[in-house]
Amino acid sequence: MLRKRLQTLGIEIPALTPPLASYVPAKRHQDVIYVSGQLPLLAGNLLMTGPMQSGRSLDDAQNAMGRCFLNGLAAAGTVVDLDEIQGVLKLGAFVASEPDFADQHKVANGASDLAQEIFGASGIHARFAVGVAVLPLNATVELEIHFLV
Amino acid sequence: MLRKRLQTLGIEIPALTPPLASYVPAKRHQDVIYVSGQLPLLAGNLLMTGPMQSGRSLDDAQNAMGRCFLNGLAAAGTVVDLDEIQGVLKLGAFVASEPDFADQHKVANGASDLAQEIFGASGIHARFAVGVAVLPLNATVELEIHFLV
Amino acid sequence: MLRKRLQTLGIEIPALTPPLASYVPAKRHQDVIYVSGQLPLLAGNLLMTGPMQSGRSLDDAQNAMGRCFLNGLAAAGTVVDLDEIQGVLKLGAFVASEPDFADQHKVANGASDLAQEIFGASGIHARFAVGVAVLPLNATVELEIHFLV
Repeated sequence: MLRKRLQTLGIEIPALTPPLASYVPAKRHQDVIYVSGQLPLLAGNLLMTGPMQSGRSLDDAQNAMGRCFLNGLAAAGTVVDLDEIQGVLKLGAFVASEPDFADQHKVANGASDLAQEIFGASGIHARFAVGVAVLPLNATVELEIHFLV
Repeated sequence: MLRKRLQTLGIEIPALTPPLASYVPAKRHQDVIYVSGQLPLLAGNLLMTGPMQSGRSLDDAQNAMGRCFLNGLAAAGTVVDLDEIQGVLKLGAFVASEPDFADQHKVANGASDLAQEIFGASGIHARFAVGVAVLPLNATVELEIHFLV
Repeated sequence: MLRKRLQTLGIEIPALTPPLASYVPAKRHQDVIYVSGQLPLLAGNLLMTGPMQSGRSLDDAQNAMGRCFLNGLAAAGTVVDLDEIQGVLKLGAFVASEPDFADQHKVANGASDLAQEIFGASGIHARFAVGVAVLPLNATVELEIHFLV
C-alpha cells in the first residue's frame, strides 16, 4: 500500500505539474509505466538550475533528483492508482554538467535512495547516469522512470 | 490503417537510410518496436547540423525532429507492415545544444506533434528531451522511438 | 550456450565490479534484462577517461565500449544464468565528446560488433549513440544494455 507507506515516511506526493509540451506525464503498457522525463519542479519553480560543477552542493543536486522522483510518482498517478505501483524497474538520470564534474552517479543516488526508502527491495532498479550539456528550462537534473505495477 | 492516414495527411514515408553502423534500424520484441536513434536525414543529407543555440531557428529544429520521426516510421517498416503500427509508447529526444539553449522540450515537440497528428490519441506518448554535447555526423537532433503494434 | 560460445571466442567474462551507488547491476522483467549503465572498468580501473576529440584513438574508444558490453554480460549474470541469455534487444551508447568529435556511432560499434560476434543474428539490436558532456568518474564511454532471455 504505497499511500500508507508514503504517509508513514511523511512524504507528500506533489501536485502534478502539467507537461511543458505535447506529450503525457506517463503512459502505461502492460505492467510497466513509462514516466516522461521529470524536472525538479516544486510548486511550479525549479529547485535548482544551471550545470553541476566542482564546488556546487552535491546535497542540493541529490535533493533535486529526489524531487524528480516524487514528481514521477505524481505522473504515474495519472494512469494508475498509486497503490498499484509495485516498484521501480529503471531510472535514467541526466545531470547538466560542466567538464570538471564527474559525480553524476552520486547525484542520481538522490532518486535511487528514495526509491528504496519508499518501495523497499522492490524499489531497487537498473539505472544509467550521464552528464549532459543542458536540460529544458536550464534545470540541473532530469529523471526518466519506469515503474512496475 | 496507417498508410491511408499518411496519404490523407499528404505525408510520404521516406526511403530508408541504411544504418551508419553495425545494428538494425528497428527490432521488434513482443508488441513493441524499438527504433534505433534516428537522424534528420532527407535523401541522404542532414537537414540541420551543429548545436542549437540562442538565435537559431526553433522552427528548423522542430522540422528536423519531425523528419527523425518519419525516418523512424520507415525504420519500423523494416520489421512490420506500417498498417500494423498502432501508436507511440515513448520518445527519447536528444538535441545538440550550446549552454545558452534550454528549449529542448520545444524542439522535441516537432516529433510529438507529428506523432499525434498521424496516430491521434494513440500517438500520445511518454518522453524525455535533453541537450547533449554533440551527435553523430554533427546532426542537430536525434530521436529514439518505441512504437506499439 | 553462451558460456561455450564465449570460450570458443576466447572471451572471459570479467569479475563483476560492484555498482558505484544504490542500485543493482541488472534487473529482470519478464524476458528482458535491464542492465545498468556500464563503464569501461577492467580490474577496477577505467580503460579510458576524458572526452573523445578529434585525434584521439577511435580504436581505444571502441575497445572501451566493448569492455562495457562484457561488463554488461557480467552484470546480467547476477540475475540469470549466462546460458539463458538469448540475444540483445537494445544498446544505449553514451560517449563523452568534445564538439569536434562526431563519430559516436563508430565508437558504439565497439559494442555492437562484439554483440554480433558473441550472439550471431540474435545479437543484432536497436541502438542509439550520443555525445554527452561528461560521464561518471570521467569515463570516456558508458553503455546501457537490454538483453533478451
